[in-house]
Amino acid sequence: METELSRRLGVEHAVFGFTPFPAVAAAITRAGGFGVLGAVRYSAPDELRRDLEWMQRHTGGGPYGVDVVMPAAMARPEEPAGDAADGAGTDLEARIEALIPEGHREFVRATLARYGVPDPAPGEASGWRITGWLDQVARSQLDVVFDYPVRLLANALGAPPADVLRRAHDHRVPVAALAGSARHARRHQAAGVDIVVAQGYEAGGHTGEIASMVLTPEVVRAVDPLPVLAAGGIGTGEQIAAALALGAQGVWLGSVWLTTREAELHSRALTRKLLAAGSGDTVRSRALTGKPARQLRTAWTDAWDAADSPDPLPMPLQGLLVADAVSRIQRYEVEPLLGTPVGQVVGLMTEERPVQAVFDDLTRGFERAIDRLNRVAGRVT
Amino acid sequence: METELSRRLGVEHAVFGFTPFPAVAAAITRAGGFGVLGAVRYSAPDELRRDLEWMQRHTGGGPYGVDVVMPAAMARPEEPAGDAADGAGTDLEARIEALIPEGHREFVRATLARYGVPDPAPGEASGWRITGWLDQVARSQLDVVFDYPVRLLANALGAPPADVLRRAHDHRVPVAALAGSARHARRHQAAGVDIVVAQGYEAGGHTGEIASMVLTPEVVRAVDPLPVLAAGGIGTGEQIAAALALGAQGVWLGSVWLTTREAELHSRALTRKLLAAGSGDTVRSRALTGKPARQLRTAWTDAWDAADSPDPLPMPLQGLLVADAVSRIQRYEVEPLLGTPVGQVVGLMTEERPVQAVFDDLTRGFERAIDRLNRVAGRVT
Repeated sequence: METELSRRLGVEHAVFGFTPFPAVAAAITRAGGFGVLGAVRYSAPDELRRDLEWMQRHTGGGPYGVDVVMPAAMARPEEPAGDAADGAGTDLEARIEALIPEGHREFVRATLARYGVPDPAPGEASGWRITGWLDQVARSQLDVVFDYPVRLLANALGAPPADVLRRAHDHRVPVAALAGSARHARRHQAAGVDIVVAQGYEAGGHTGEIASMVLTPEVVRAVDPLPVLAAGGIGTGEQIAAALALGAQGVWLGSVWLTTREAELHSRALTRKLLAAGSGDTVRSRALTGKPARQLRTAWTDAWDAADSPDPLPMPLQGLLVADAVSRIQRYEVEPLLGTPVGQVVGLMTEERPVQAVFDDLTRGFERAIDRLNRVAGRVT
Repeated sequence: METELSRRLGVEHAVFGFTPFPAVAAAITRAGGFGVLGAVRYSAPDELRRDLEWMQRHTGGGPYGVDVVMPAAMARPEEPAGDAADGAGTDLEARIEALIPEGHREFVRATLARYGVPDPAPGEASGWRITGWLDQVARSQLDVVFDYPVRLLANALGAPPADVLRRAHDHRVPVAALAGSARHARRHQAAGVDIVVAQGYEAGGHTGEIASMVLTPEVVRAVDPLPVLAAGGIGTGEQIAAALALGAQGVWLGSVWLTTREAELHSRALTRKLLAAGSGDTVRSRALTGKPARQLRTAWTDAWDAADSPDPLPMPLQGLLVADAVSRIQRYEVEPLLGTPVGQVVGLMTEERPVQAVFDDLTRGFERAIDRLNRVAGRVT
């Protein structure tokens, strides 16, 4: 699967694999794809450094990238990155936490209590905090990222702030930004983004309402000649062929890696839920981050969707509000509440396999689809 | 675009065009596709007969079909089709109308009044009644349909009742049924349906929540070896190539024909709205029929979606409740309220063109997509 973009980025197959797990990202690159490490869960830059160091040694010289989460609107380049550089961002976090209404905190407590989620042990720190989208944290991550020969900087929330774009381009690193509509995509293009990831309705994580079949060609047309990666609903080689037929220069896959052997979900119960889920078992909900994000439908998302529940708070408040709760749900594997961002392709994920096996299926399925299309078109090859 | 199914049905291209307009259906067949006439708007069998008569003379011997709307659950084959055969179904309609709450009628009146929709003239009959999904009406339509050499009977609401299936098969007419999930599709297969139309989230009209990119391959796998047509999000040849890459044996297009020259929308204002709408200007709403159906987002759908509005009634009550209102909105072209079922591809519909021109674009775009995919796959053809 060779496109203009894949040639430019020096990758064998135009398959970009987004994952929060370094072992998965490295395996994707080794398989001939482009591994992209999601940085949002790293609140300490040193941990990100450790993992990039590891990836650099385990990608066999192949290309890889990093995905940060930077809302352009939150950019405050003039503020000192002080404690964020120490790895916590706690000061800013405390100021933001003060904006969370007590009624929302009570709702979280009550929901956890209803499902018997154990209280944190005294002095127990949250194992999982979504602080990566706090501007200062994201900036401290970038200080680390540019110490490594990354070949792509992606931003899940659209165009990064202008100074970040400049910095990436100074390092000759192309920047990709996710878009859920042609309008978003044009805005990213105007901001100077190099690659647009068209994130369809069926995708896991933050997503809009336009499905990939319509969104991909619309974004391709809107930002021409910028290259577009199709994201959302892609987990087989046939789906890759479909996305490329729609004009994408490559595909961006996230969900399918969650059930690979290399994924470090640290929860057998969650892996079992993912393997059992059908395509109809996800929901677009604001319960996790404050913005609509597709995820497994669980008792947790149902609780937030109930008629008498409080409205989820705007990003980043909702993420801070639920961080401890999500961490405890995961730690104690409280099954009814246990979830994760994942797309509608979860229905295709029915067995745990090594990344290489998944990748081999992608390339084989792609070739099968091309054979089939040539037959339909009356071109015997 | 030749598949096993297109060969079996004797059609040049595996492109099925669904439309309520005989002139459009006939033009699709003449262009080398398979025109399917939607019968839901015919309450009088004689009108359907007149239009099928016309189609028979204007399809040049090419294959065409009819789409009825029969909820399997409403099947009452033992009831006499009495007044329905006379063309109205008014008796049953009256009994059903009695189930509509007065509060809902008042909401409709108030909404129409707010937008200045004129009252009906004394004695003016509704020009548009969705009575086609009343079982008796659908059955009286079938009496007409089987007098013509139709090559396909489709049912927009799933598998038709068993006796209808038998009747179609006695006439050697294959039956297609729309499905929004693999579970629906398997149910249709078990009922004896011959072709499944996988109707993705992005489609116009009644639709589920699984997008085409995921739904199509899932349904293909679920009902193998039954042939599957992909519906939802398809308006270009590139999208046809994508759908066929996903394993479909053909595509089912509805929205794109609405802005063809041959379409008899009888409303310049509605045509203008369709040509101006973007992919984000549709909504899945129960306001029109009682089941979620994608349509243009209008002040009418917004009114029903407002927090203090009554919940839409179940099918067929909602359709009967709003039939007169929709008819008056269309007749008087009350622009803010004016809408129609249409899919997210409405964003691609930017000029009024003859069916033949649309069809030529489909075949050209398909060939372009195949060329491109062969280049990506490293197969120079």
